[in-house]
Amino acid sequence: MKVYVWKHSGNSYKLRVLLALIGVDYEEVMINFRTHEHKSAEYRKINPRGQVPAIVDGDTVLWDSAACLVYIARKFGGDQWLPSAPAAMAEVMNWVALAGGEMQFGLQYARRGLTRGICSAGTVEQMQANGRIALDLLEARLQAHDWLALGRPTIADIACFPYVETAPQGGIPLEPYPRIGLWLKRCKALPNWPERWQV
Amino acid sequence: MKVYVWKHSGNSYKLRVLLALIGVDYEEVMINFRTHEHKSAEYRKINPRGQVPAIVDGDTVLWDSAACLVYIARKFGGDQWLPSAPAAMAEVMNWVALAGGEMQFGLQYARRGLTRGICSAGTVEQMQANGRIALDLLEARLQAHDWLALGRPTIADIACFPYVETAPQGGIPLEPYPRIGLWLKRCKALPNWPERWQV
Repeated sequence: MKVYVWKHSGNSYKLRVLLALIGVDYEEVMINFRTHEHKSAEYRKINPRGQVPAIVDGDTVLWDSAACLVYIARKFGGDQWLPSAPAAMAEVMNWVALAGGEMQFGLQYARRGLTRGICSAGTVEQMQANGRIALDLLEARLQAHDWLALGRPTIADIACFPYVETAPQGGIPLEPYPRIGLWLKRCKALPNWPERWQV
Repeated sequence: MKVYVWKHSGNSYKLRVLLALIGVDYEEVMINFRTHEHKSAEYRKINPRGQVPAIVDGDTVLWDSAACLVYIARKFGGDQWLPSAPAAMAEVMNWVALAGGEMQFGLQYARRGLTRGICSAGTVEQMQANGRIALDLLEARLQAHDWLALGRPTIADIACFPYVETAPQGGIPLEPYPRIGLWLKRCKALPNWPERWQV
């Protein structure tokens, strides 16, 4: 299984986390954003969206991080990280979808706006507002729960972790969200949780 | 099963389509956006995100349209609309995730920008650009396939349908996307495909 990533990409980091927690062997392929490799014709044959991560495993080609998480969880993790029972699966998907919505277009793009000057989904203030919708949902959920879904770590937590952790880089301090702070520590304390790439 | 919808909501329409295609009995609860019922304290107990659709079925509470589709498909549709095999499930999720990403924040928000003057994810031009990323992916896929995933209708198609169909209302004509035009017709020809709400 080839996993295409970029070391600064939070969406790539999600896969790195899940693969490490389950203990899956895979081939990591670094796609260099600095040389715009992710927009190259060659890479677009794998991921026509021109983003990372992507997975190629035999005939399976996946170009969305949520789809990649679903694949890894279901193929290598049994029912632990994403159960197949309807209600349990859907409860996890609430949060995986949020990660691809307000977290990507809010938390992540606010960060990209402040750190790289790219504002493709609104002003920084608008992206911060979208991001806070997601943080408010997490904080409320974590009032009475240690994990986002099912009372245990799942891909819900892994999908949400990277861009919540880096929210302050988008000008959204996490001090007003004490439960989120505890949850971030809880995630990082999971056995085999990997560090971000050293850059 | 209670399904909370608003008649002008494309995300609500996704659920209406899947429920009709499978033939599921359910209780429809209309949430009135004109009176801001979706932002009321009472409704936020069900959906803290303040959006539609949502599902309440016994102890199960779902507040994201992708999660709702996953739930309906897995509970009532066997493996037909969302298989449990890893590669097949993930292939479907590529498109379900795209629907929650560039389609929601591009196609749908461009439409909302032009029709209601709300620009919460960039300028109209930026939202149109994000929307075209999604349309380009669909058009390329549909060059050699009748359906977005697995060679048959799945929740991939249902998740993408509503905001692709209404893309022109966001100032994105569909004439440059002939394969998408054929696919829209193919979807609507599925047995029991429901019309949008009459408004």
